[in-house]
Amino acid sequence: MKKLTIIKVGGKIVEEQESLQQLLADFSKIEGHKILVHGGGRSATAIATKLDVESQMINGRRITDAEMLKVVTMVYGGLVNKQIVAGLQALGVNALGLTGADMNYMRSEKRSVTEVDYGFAGDVKAVNAELLAEIIAKNIVPVLAPLTHDGRGNMLNTNADTIAGETAKALAKHFHVTLIYCFEKKGVLLNEHDDNSVIAELTPELFKKYVENGTIQGGMIPKLENSFEALNAGVKEVVITRADEINNGSGTKVC
Amino acid sequence: MKKLTIIKVGGKIVEEQESLQQLLADFSKIEGHKILVHGGGRSATAIATKLDVESQMINGRRITDAEMLKVVTMVYGGLVNKQIVAGLQALGVNALGLTGADMNYMRSEKRSVTEVDYGFAGDVKAVNAELLAEIIAKNIVPVLAPLTHDGRGNMLNTNADTIAGETAKALAKHFHVTLIYCFEKKGVLLNEHDDNSVIAELTPELFKKYVENGTIQGGMIPKLENSFEALNAGVKEVVITRADEINNGSGTKVC
Repeated sequence: MKKLTIIKVGGKIVEEQESLQQLLADFSKIEGHKILVHGGGRSATAIATKLDVESQMINGRRITDAEMLKVVTMVYGGLVNKQIVAGLQALGVNALGLTGADMNYMRSEKRSVTEVDYGFAGDVKAVNAELLAEIIAKNIVPVLAPLTHDGRGNMLNTNADTIAGETAKALAKHFHVTLIYCFEKKGVLLNEHDDNSVIAELTPELFKKYVENGTIQGGMIPKLENSFEALNAGVKEVVITRADEINNGSGTKVC
Repeated sequence: MKKLTIIKVGGKIVEEQESLQQLLADFSKIEGHKILVHGGGRSATAIATKLDVESQMINGRRITDAEMLKVVTMVYGGLVNKQIVAGLQALGVNALGLTGADMNYMRSEKRSVTEVDYGFAGDVKAVNAELLAEIIAKNIVPVLAPLTHDGRGNMLNTNADTIAGETAKALAKHFHVTLIYCFEKKGVLLNEHDDNSVIAELTPELFKKYVENGTIQGGMIPKLENSFEALNAGVKEVVITRADEINNGSGTKVC
């Protein structure tokens, strides 16, 4: 099987011209097949504010009402995605911007209302990876926006980490997949005040220990749980690192 | 060669829920391979107004400054395109939304400044139809937004009629192409006050006569010139009709 590298970057990296250009230059140097999954939350919030659409967040997740759904569809699927695609084309990378609706790539269902009504947020139900795998084999580089569809005509806002993880799992039977989650630190830290205290390798046992003693907490816990789940589903390697380190072999290797 | 139908619809049809749903239902019934090319100008103007971006039009064409380019990239490439794609998926049509940047499908150059500076408007320079033809052969239905890229990282606003015409010409060596331009009348009219006075067939000789005697005027002239150009480049059939008549075999056949 051929190698496929999936890079997930958050909104901040792709929303500032300087860091975006650095990311695209670094990404263009990755050899072999690859996919870029992006966020765009800050741009969505900025455009929503200008349009007088209120941005409401609960537990770090956006509440997507009907007006906000239009905003994220425009901003993630249009503005951010096409800027990345055009930028990659300029670097000789044959990028193809996609949402889950395109080629029915990723279908989701509107999240059930429990304590919180997240509105038009989608939980992934089905990934059709066959056609995507064929397109990747033609040296096309998918650029995935954090949007899915429900199969009944509605787009749904979907977490970019989830899109990256589900994509990695679905493509694991076609490629030797490395999944790289970029965030603001160089990896998972032993000491949150020391940016150089990166944990080089994280096993399920170490993870359990670090959660119990409070070393790993907050949003990093679900990210790592998803990483172990991806490995169990056949993904070869999951790395957590900083966007400007993706070609350096650094970061935390989840194994 | 297999048949390919390319439908171009203006913004008005795709921007109102009722006419959009009718169009998608009609489009889904077209047999064989197909492509939908859409506009979205009214939505772009509406969003631009809310964002305090001024919409300036000269000779029916939008002046695209840097801020307006962001708006059309969002609205055409995101909001309008993904609503169509999700709507078609709900009808069992395996749609794929594309701009010219995606898969480097259509490259353009920023229009030269003559009497008018149209800003970030693109004139088409190259169409890479090979990959699109392969994807169409897999029963994928491209949905093309009126956006191209310049190969240097910039998106460019591009007339939807032009996108449809260039696509038809580029795919003529792969498919037996019928190009259908939808507009607000049932076809080219002999008498502009009689909606039923549709000219059934229009040859270059008749066209010349009707332009000379004033029967055909205004924006219809370049549309028809483009139609004859498409036929000369190998497109099998060009039809001008109303969006709700695309399955009825009515309209003006340019031949």
